[in-house]
Amino acid sequence: MSTTSSQPPAPGVRTAPERAERKEPTYLFTEKYVADKSETARRFLETRARLNANVDKANNFLVKRFYNIDHNTYLDGTLPAKTKELMGLVASACLRCDDCIFYHAIQAYRLGVTRAEQEESLNVALVVGGSIVVPHLRRVYELLEEIYG
Amino acid sequence: MSTTSSQPPAPGVRTAPERAERKEPTYLFTEKYVADKSETARRFLETRARLNANVDKANNFLVKRFYNIDHNTYLDGTLPAKTKELMGLVASACLRCDDCIFYHAIQAYRLGVTRAEQEESLNVALVVGGSIVVPHLRRVYELLEEIYG
Amino acid sequence: MSTTSSQPPAPGVRTAPERAERKEPTYLFTEKYVADKSETARRFLETRARLNANVDKANNFLVKRFYNIDHNTYLDGTLPAKTKELMGLVASACLRCDDCIFYHAIQAYRLGVTRAEQEESLNVALVVGGSIVVPHLRRVYELLEEIYG
Amino acid sequence: MSTTSSQPPAPGVRTAPERAERKEPTYLFTEKYVADKSETARRFLETRARLNANVDKANNFLVKRFYNIDHNTYLDGTLPAKTKELMGLVASACLRCDDCIFYHAIQAYRLGVTRAEQEESLNVALVVGGSIVVPHLRRVYELLEEIYG
Amino acid sequence: MSTTSSQPPAPGVRTAPERAERKEPTYLFTEKYVADKSETARRFLETRARLNANVDKANNFLVKRFYNIDHNTYLDGTLPAKTKELMGLVASACLRCDDCIFYHAIQAYRLGVTRAEQEESLNVALVVGGSIVVPHLRRVYELLEEIYG
Amino acid sequence: MSTTSSQPPAPGVRTAPERAERKEPTYLFTEKYVADKSETARRFLETRARLNANVDKANNFLVKRFYNIDHNTYLDGTLPAKTKELMGLVASACLRCDDCIFYHAIQAYRLGVTRAEQEESLNVALVVGGSIVVPHLRRVYELLEEIYG
Repeated sequence: MSTTSSQPPAPGVRTAPERAERKEPTYLFTEKYVADKSETARRFLETRARLNANVDKANNFLVKRFYNIDHNTYLDGTLPAKTKELMGLVASACLRCDDCIFYHAIQAYRLGVTRAEQEESLNVALVVGGSIVVPHLRRVYELLEEIYG
Repeated sequence: MSTTSSQPPAPGVRTAPERAERKEPTYLFTEKYVADKSETARRFLETRARLNANVDKANNFLVKRFYNIDHNTYLDGTLPAKTKELMGLVASACLRCDDCIFYHAIQAYRLGVTRAEQEESLNVALVVGGSIVVPHLRRVYELLEEIYG
Repeated sequence: MSTTSSQPPAPGVRTAPERAERKEPTYLFTEKYVADKSETARRFLETRARLNANVDKANNFLVKRFYNIDHNTYLDGTLPAKTKELMGLVASACLRCDDCIFYHAIQAYRLGVTRAEQEESLNVALVVGGSIVVPHLRRVYELLEEIYG
Repeated sequence: MSTTSSQPPAPGVRTAPERAERKEPTYLFTEKYVADKSETARRFLETRARLNANVDKANNFLVKRFYNIDHNTYLDGTLPAKTKELMGLVASACLRCDDCIFYHAIQAYRLGVTRAEQEESLNVALVVGGSIVVPHLRRVYELLEEIYG
Repeated sequence: MSTTSSQPPAPGVRTAPERAERKEPTYLFTEKYVADKSETARRFLETRARLNANVDKANNFLVKRFYNIDHNTYLDGTLPAKTKELMGLVASACLRCDDCIFYHAIQAYRLGVTRAEQEESLNVALVVGGSIVVPHLRRVYELLEEIYG
Repeated sequence: MSTTSSQPPAPGVRTAPERAERKEPTYLFTEKYVADKSETARRFLETRARLNANVDKANNFLVKRFYNIDHNTYLDGTLPAKTKELMGLVASACLRCDDCIFYHAIQAYRLGVTRAEQEESLNVALVVGGSIVVPHLRRVYELLEEIYG
């Protein structure tokens, strides 16, 4: 059974045998481990957890649906979770959101991505997005220094 | 000798042994091959070539320097070129530039990336960037249909 | 039964009685009616339909999920569908996507929104987004002239 | 007399009888009332007031003109002020400006908009703008919790 | 009398003697002259004129006010009009709007700006905005070739 | 010898005699002088220096290349450095990056730009970028008050 479609495809529709099942990736490190290594990560993760608890309490149907899709996007699939977390990092750096950048850099670290791989991903964001990305680059390099240092 | 630094690093500076040499990737297909399969690709590549010739003629120092950095960004390195072309695709879709999307989708195809890998990369862009990405998704799906179909 | 949550909320979670059921709005006009009045609308709707058919054929799980959330967002609910279509118009104009602007302007028209209401919504986008919005304003005013004129 | 034009329109120009007069909306709550309920609102409003005083002191002609247009945009008119404040909220969330988000959420509250209406407006921004909007959503949900809680 | 304020400033308010009067700049070339030299410029200017006539016909109060502020922004003042047209060019290239880029490049040309000055301004946009600016750079270089060639 | 090209141009290529040599501009004030006048500037400059030291330590080849291009962009050339710093200010304000805005405002001040010139540049950004720019305008006006006050 393919997870890519919950219904039999209509005639003429791509069945996509080349698509892999989506499944939860294996994390090498917990969020707590990262927070213990990095003060920057700890502050970010605590604020995020506190604010997310408040969003959860609101119990908004569409927000929950959106969070669910978001979760599914970064699972192991045709591409490994670590590649997609790095893509999330590139997208976040181009769109210039520090919270999103920190989140994906931490996720990538937890999945075993090396610092050199994170830097090379950030280079794509820097060249695509230009010098306006630099202040965010500076801040995530501080995070990288703390978690890999 | 490492290509990652043309000068000996100052004392206390990271020497980054984990960084791989940058080198030109191997393309499985020429641009002409893609243009012959896809009318959308052909029109894009011809316009791009014509306009780039005009930019080259201007011989602007900083533009040439920028193009050079841009070229270096997508070489095989710590991450393979195909991963970085897909990252360029994600960044381009998030920032919503059809020309950039088409360029990276064609480059990824030429390096042997599958359609399922392109779609999964585009899903990251869709979820990060939202429904404003959808019109660009529609147009690049037409390109994907033509080059993989 | 409330459509805003498919599961009983956990203890302490907001049950949101003030949220209205989501339901399909009533359209006063078909897409065909709009296409017959406006050449600009007709070209847009035909291209969109053709490209969407190609996306549907790809049968991508996350894209389908995203389209589903997107559809749910603009149903009648706590706010009427016409207000949310106008909000989609404002968002699209601020983010400067002609396809999205045309789509929401046509949807709003089909739901009975007046031209003055469309213009006043676009004024919010113009003031928030600045003169960079003006070229998009010019193009959607042409559409408005055709469908209301 | 119509407020939509200070001069008689030229021949063939739309006189727009369907456009309503612009007038100041009635606020149910003062800024002080909101600041007393919410620490997040209080900090935002105080900083904004202090910085605006400094801008006013500069007495820059074009800035004053721009502020004047901005003020006029959100008056009661063809659309009620509360709908336009919610549109300002959607635009601000899509363009990802916390100050602007907080400002319009507070204004909407002062005009009697319910929390469910604010959340549904934010859903439009979330779906149009994608997960990059989520960190801003988290922060404004904290504000909503404080002012409606 | 200073054009920077139509009212006597309140006590303690900056009187800004250093601000120059705003006045219409002197154009060296008409739009028609540019359109005759460049097919790209001619198509852009004709479409813009046609669409603006339609916007004017709508006679929307806030749009007219916004156009008026926009016009005032680029007059000769403390900075010469040609510098501000080049700033408009940089802003338009960073925000990636072809119509806006073409408009300011043509205005700058009409005021006597050289091609080298236009290219150097575009370099600022390229470095700040990154490779996502490149497709727009290619298109405006074609325009520059036609009007300066 | 022209600095605009390190190689003899190919036949038919523009030699660009109108382009001026690039050279370092003369600063009227040191960063320390600005930091002593303005607490806002001091905090910004210190954080920037600390984070840049960390980036330098990483010794990333492409980041160094990018920083080098960035440095070259704002040298005296065909346009004076002060004009290009103001263009950098406009671009930064339009793209809404406080760090970048503060950086270019300080650089412009150090090169002898007046407050009225800074304000007029910011007006271009305000009109092009809209009210979403206002919160950044408020913050940079505070900086301007401190360094020029």
